[in-house]
Amino acid sequence: MKSQIAEEYVQVDALDWAPFPEALSKGGIRWKLMHVSPEMGVWTAFFDCPAGSSFNAHTHQGPGEYLLTKGRMDVRGGKANGGDTAVAPGYGYESAGARHDQTAFPVDSEFYMSFLGPLVFISADGSPLAVVGWKEVQGAWQAFLDSKPAVKRAA
Amino acid sequence: MKSQIAEEYVQVDALDWAPFPEALSKGGIRWKLMHVSPEMGVWTAFFDCPAGSSFNAHTHQGPGEYLLTKGRMDVRGGKANGGDTAVAPGYGYESAGARHDQTAFPVDSEFYMSFLGPLVFISADGSPLAVVGWKEVQGAWQAFLDSKPAVKRAA
Amino acid sequence: MKSQIAEEYVQVDALDWAPFPEALSKGGIRWKLMHVSPEMGVWTAFFDCPAGSSFNAHTHQGPGEYLLTKGRMDVRGGKANGGDTAVAPGYGYESAGARHDQTAFPVDSEFYMSFLGPLVFISADGSPLAVVGWKEVQGAWQAFLDSKPAVKRAA
Amino acid sequence: MKSQIAEEYVQVDALDWAPFPEALSKGGIRWKLMHVSPEMGVWTAFFDCPAGSSFNAHTHQGPGEYLLTKGRMDVRGGKANGGDTAVAPGYGYESAGARHDQTAFPVDSEFYMSFLGPLVFISADGSPLAVVGWKEVQGAWQAFLDSKPAVKRAA
Repeated sequence: MKSQIAEEYVQVDALDWAPFPEALSKGGIRWKLMHVSPEMGVWTAFFDCPAGSSFNAHTHQGPGEYLLTKGRMDVRGGKANGGDTAVAPGYGYESAGARHDQTAFPVDSEFYMSFLGPLVFISADGSPLAVVGWKEVQGAWQAFLDSKPAVKRAA
Repeated sequence: MKSQIAEEYVQVDALDWAPFPEALSKGGIRWKLMHVSPEMGVWTAFFDCPAGSSFNAHTHQGPGEYLLTKGRMDVRGGKANGGDTAVAPGYGYESAGARHDQTAFPVDSEFYMSFLGPLVFISADGSPLAVVGWKEVQGAWQAFLDSKPAVKRAA
Repeated sequence: MKSQIAEEYVQVDALDWAPFPEALSKGGIRWKLMHVSPEMGVWTAFFDCPAGSSFNAHTHQGPGEYLLTKGRMDVRGGKANGGDTAVAPGYGYESAGARHDQTAFPVDSEFYMSFLGPLVFISADGSPLAVVGWKEVQGAWQAFLDSKPAVKRAA
Repeated sequence: MKSQIAEEYVQVDALDWAPFPEALSKGGIRWKLMHVSPEMGVWTAFFDCPAGSSFNAHTHQGPGEYLLTKGRMDVRGGKANGGDTAVAPGYGYESAGARHDQTAFPVDSEFYMSFLGPLVFISADGSPLAVVGWKEVQGAWQAFLDSKPAVKRAA
């Protein structure tokens, strides 16, 4: 018999920020991991995005829901270019198959997002460079925790 | 050929609060709908929970993720009774099959939550009273909007 | 760190058939459990449906995919009534929110189906009678296995 | 208001087989598309695998469930190498994050499989070569239908 999955609780402000890989972003983005769901492939994180930062081009292989809790986020080029410009507090739904050539933060911003399935970071011609799913983010988060002995994941 | 699902954006603070049904809660809980996903059965909402309010007993038929943005929330009896007590900013994962006999708010609180599948509100013996999934919340939200001509869902 | 979920294999023809509850069906339907996914709430089973059998009225709270491997299945009243009539080998997709007042088998039939989320069996006025999700089917299957000492789940 | 997703029915034996890309497989594998779910990123297909055929190395980014309806399939090296050897009728669950360096068919075989999220075909060092999700399979299937005027998808 399989057991019900354990519930989880994370005290968000008790976690340190980890640097988000520079190969996948610009301008000093940082993140904290909230949760991974190995069975479904869901992963959930907070992102801290300084003014002028951005994520490199990627596709969403499953749906994602975000809550912008601070600042402003230009998605799919921002509203001026046919995309969306979120202003906190703003909620957005990004669909499976969405291609985001640049997600940019004109002011200091923070958002929470839950992803089903991986992000695939891509080159200019659309070919895959890196797959970032529950396994990769869990591994990266653990490496960050291991690198800072004083950091503890909230119980 | 099926199309990619459209992206969505909701300006959270531009929406009014709707009363949450008194048959399912106590103490004046209000809510706003962010999103429904008819294919998967996902639905996402914000809840405003005054001090002393609570949700009636229910089960989660799929996983749910919440972000407590204000106040305090006692889940599964709260920490003192073997459950969790979330303090803003707090993140929690509630698993498929979780039974919540009471979810209570000792102080004015607010949380965001995304649900996969329905909540089933239950009687004391566990028998189902009401199924609340994407269809029911969409219908209830639309009825609220229709009841207030001046209220408009944010574009 | 959470581990990748274990892979599973079931030798379908090595499992015995369990009687499907008479409170939820008519005509001697039997079933075998293939898999449950506690995190997502998926469950997957085979059903053996004699000529003249049927399932009682229910709703699908999430999407379901079936493969009719033998016989004929009238879904949503069958083709003659605006629904579908599957003839083996037939594939079907039933969507979240679908209400099936009767699913009937005019000839001896067999189908495989994977469900996301529970079925809710309902009374004539639509009120919920029983919720059948991953937990309930796993429990029922285990009870069947426990009742027959000679029956073993295939390794 | 969003509508319930339409139900679907496919007469499996009325569809022709399309060649599966030779860049991703060996030995003449063919396939037919049953269904894509753009919102969740689910896709479901049948595969016809001649004796001696195999799929190239890939990872499963989400869970997959298969039903082997004919023949034999060696997954993750087959039972002799610590993986599974399915024999029809066999059911299997492959988990999110599974890496399949070779999936091979020693005899003429056929299987049905439903995937959540994409397959990522990989090179020997694990770097991504091609992402195959709902969008790509729908596009490939449509291209096949367009290439054969006499072929019609079953109503």
